[in-house]
Amino acid sequence: MTQLEQARKGTITPFMRAVANSEGLEAEQVRAGVEDGSIVIPANVNHENLQPCGIGKGLRTKVNANIGTSSDFGDVNTELAKLRAAEGAKADTVMDLSTGGDIRSIRRSIAAATSLPLGTVPIYQAGIEAINRWGAIVAMPVDHLFSVIQEHAEDGVDFITVHCGITRKAVDRLKQSPRLTDVVSRGGAFTIAWMLHNGQENPLYEHFDRLLEIALRYDVTLSLGDGLRPGSLADASDRAQIEELLTIGELVDHSRAAGVQVMVEGPGHMPLDQIAANVQLEKIVCRGAPFYVLGPLVTDIGAGYDHISAAIGGAIASASGADYLCYVTPSEHLALPDAEDVREGVTATRLAAHAGDIVKGVRGALDWDRAMSLARKKLDWKEQVRLSLDPEKSSRVRGQHQTSGSGCSMCGQYCAMELVANYIGTTPGRC
Amino acid sequence: MTQLEQARKGTITPFMRAVANSEGLEAEQVRAGVEDGSIVIPANVNHENLQPCGIGKGLRTKVNANIGTSSDFGDVNTELAKLRAAEGAKADTVMDLSTGGDIRSIRRSIAAATSLPLGTVPIYQAGIEAINRWGAIVAMPVDHLFSVIQEHAEDGVDFITVHCGITRKAVDRLKQSPRLTDVVSRGGAFTIAWMLHNGQENPLYEHFDRLLEIALRYDVTLSLGDGLRPGSLADASDRAQIEELLTIGELVDHSRAAGVQVMVEGPGHMPLDQIAANVQLEKIVCRGAPFYVLGPLVTDIGAGYDHISAAIGGAIASASGADYLCYVTPSEHLALPDAEDVREGVTATRLAAHAGDIVKGVRGALDWDRAMSLARKKLDWKEQVRLSLDPEKSSRVRGQHQTSGSGCSMCGQYCAMELVANYIGTTPGRC
Repeated sequence: MTQLEQARKGTITPFMRAVANSEGLEAEQVRAGVEDGSIVIPANVNHENLQPCGIGKGLRTKVNANIGTSSDFGDVNTELAKLRAAEGAKADTVMDLSTGGDIRSIRRSIAAATSLPLGTVPIYQAGIEAINRWGAIVAMPVDHLFSVIQEHAEDGVDFITVHCGITRKAVDRLKQSPRLTDVVSRGGAFTIAWMLHNGQENPLYEHFDRLLEIALRYDVTLSLGDGLRPGSLADASDRAQIEELLTIGELVDHSRAAGVQVMVEGPGHMPLDQIAANVQLEKIVCRGAPFYVLGPLVTDIGAGYDHISAAIGGAIASASGADYLCYVTPSEHLALPDAEDVREGVTATRLAAHAGDIVKGVRGALDWDRAMSLARKKLDWKEQVRLSLDPEKSSRVRGQHQTSGSGCSMCGQYCAMELVANYIGTTPGRC
Repeated sequence: MTQLEQARKGTITPFMRAVANSEGLEAEQVRAGVEDGSIVIPANVNHENLQPCGIGKGLRTKVNANIGTSSDFGDVNTELAKLRAAEGAKADTVMDLSTGGDIRSIRRSIAAATSLPLGTVPIYQAGIEAINRWGAIVAMPVDHLFSVIQEHAEDGVDFITVHCGITRKAVDRLKQSPRLTDVVSRGGAFTIAWMLHNGQENPLYEHFDRLLEIALRYDVTLSLGDGLRPGSLADASDRAQIEELLTIGELVDHSRAAGVQVMVEGPGHMPLDQIAANVQLEKIVCRGAPFYVLGPLVTDIGAGYDHISAAIGGAIASASGADYLCYVTPSEHLALPDAEDVREGVTATRLAAHAGDIVKGVRGALDWDRAMSLARKKLDWKEQVRLSLDPEKSSRVRGQHQTSGSGCSMCGQYCAMELVANYIGTTPGRC
């Protein structure tokens, strides 16, 4: 039985209890959230040693790190180093998006090396194998796509991105209202190329029940991908994007009816004042399904700094109700990230998630800031380092410049905290 | 005559024309903005070779870089290197916040080395000189404070932060409603310590007319500092902060009546959902005076990543109507920044300012994103690098990983842009 099916029977599973513990909530609250679909716990029955993670309403906003090879770089050890970087920076989940080397073997290595929930995008492997076996992505037999999904499920993958909402109707809408950057989702591009070449409906939409059967058997959480997400600010919130969202909303209903856990993926590139509306729309149209956003990136010109662009959008999204942020690294739009990019991307995204959690009133979020500010007032540097987002970095930055004062080298002898402690006397002073 | 006085007479000055040219606006629009106070052009009559910069309504959101020595690090050459880093990263203005070494000589070296508008906080020098001459900040004679302000004006400083809004009443409100982190502004702490020790009103408030006389003579723009800005999320938008803002609003009226250009400084640490309200309140209470915000930082726990925390807050502030963002570097709360911190801080803040400009509809803002997205669709890498926020970094990141495809090493052979160009055919394809 899936977590959803068990929640419906009133069962509090060990995973629900573990999620509740880590969030400081009552287990019943988590069970009820899984039952009504506002929370998912991606947990493939074949995933051994999984440390379960809840995603959704009332929970801390989660951060995903994408790793994986590309056709240019197929080395599994590089990916394992990126996995360790993601874990070290405290990512909540990882996705293996490998498209190079021995994809299955790399996935199994990553799965064996982590206890974090693992996600994949099976159509990458299916499309690449289609090129190798039949000469083109568009030559991919439908059965092959489903056999790859089955393989991912057997391998213990906890959630899969499936671009089920790209229908013929959505592609028609896309053609009728041309975009600046058409389709920027790789899975979306694979799917649309296949559909147009073969003149057929998206197999993941047409045979959605077949997908549900696999998901149900292994308790694979479906992450309904937004293949038509905007890839530039000019295309944000357009008809094609919203058409796909409407279909995704219907598929959320079908998934839940089948007992399958489901969440929804979102944009993308978007002016920052459209983000709250997009989150709200998803929550309504998809009946409260957890929302997993990529960024959003609030400008197209941030190459080299897209982790910051995504942090801006992610913080606003999280504050508006998004539940799960996919990180973006400084390499986005330029190159495959390396381990240092992974670390920077995860940390920037954690900061964004936390800034949103403060606004959402997530349990314990503001307490963290309060404790940090108290340590700052006390000039308690050990505690400030411990409480910072990345203790290693704050310790290193502080250590780069020595100070003769008890504050830091920016204010030296003229620390406002000290001055006020001496003259106003409402503070406990230096420690 | 100040720019404001000239605008009132209907004169379009060469600086107004230069600002209009750089913004792609009509000169008359800039003149009208200076007249009604919604735009300032900080331009001390003694500042030679100034490249004027407009700040305010309808203009591109500007970015300031703080440089300057501390009591721990007094070397002028380090500060000149930071100045070059700020200019290289395209800061619009710089502030010299030196509190170490020979403060006047450092200021003059910085002023001589840049054509950017220069700001200072004269009370730093006045307070430190008071320590050296009379043993304590609180022993500072009022005349000394004004003589230092006069000196900054003579030296060609274009705008000065003056914490005129900290009144006895504001300090009372602060005491009646205690804060987690009391006062975190250095100038604010100097001022309050002086007031409490001497049992007197803030001299910059009590003798505001004396300040206006100096500002008028040299056309120094007043930047009314928020000495009571919140230093932690818990203190944001509290009574003391808003009390000070109300007084600042009144002082905006007095400044304008005297023909003195004026802008207003704002927070600080703040949950992101309070930012828009703070910007709106400033615009009403201060009758449209340009708003210059420090961050805002959307969490207290970002040490090491506070440039990202500030980029989140700054983007929201800019989108909500803030006109001018003071950068924050990765060293904030930890150490005096170095040149690399300056570069990172300026770039992150420029990204935030631009994300806001898109929402505000600043002329040409979205065109930049459109051009970048078009280059991306065409896989025109030379143009993508040229159009990116930091061409040197995007070129370097892209070059780190070679690709066999015409896209980038992330997608390698499986670039969505290429796939769609080949199958949908609405794109111009690779270049």
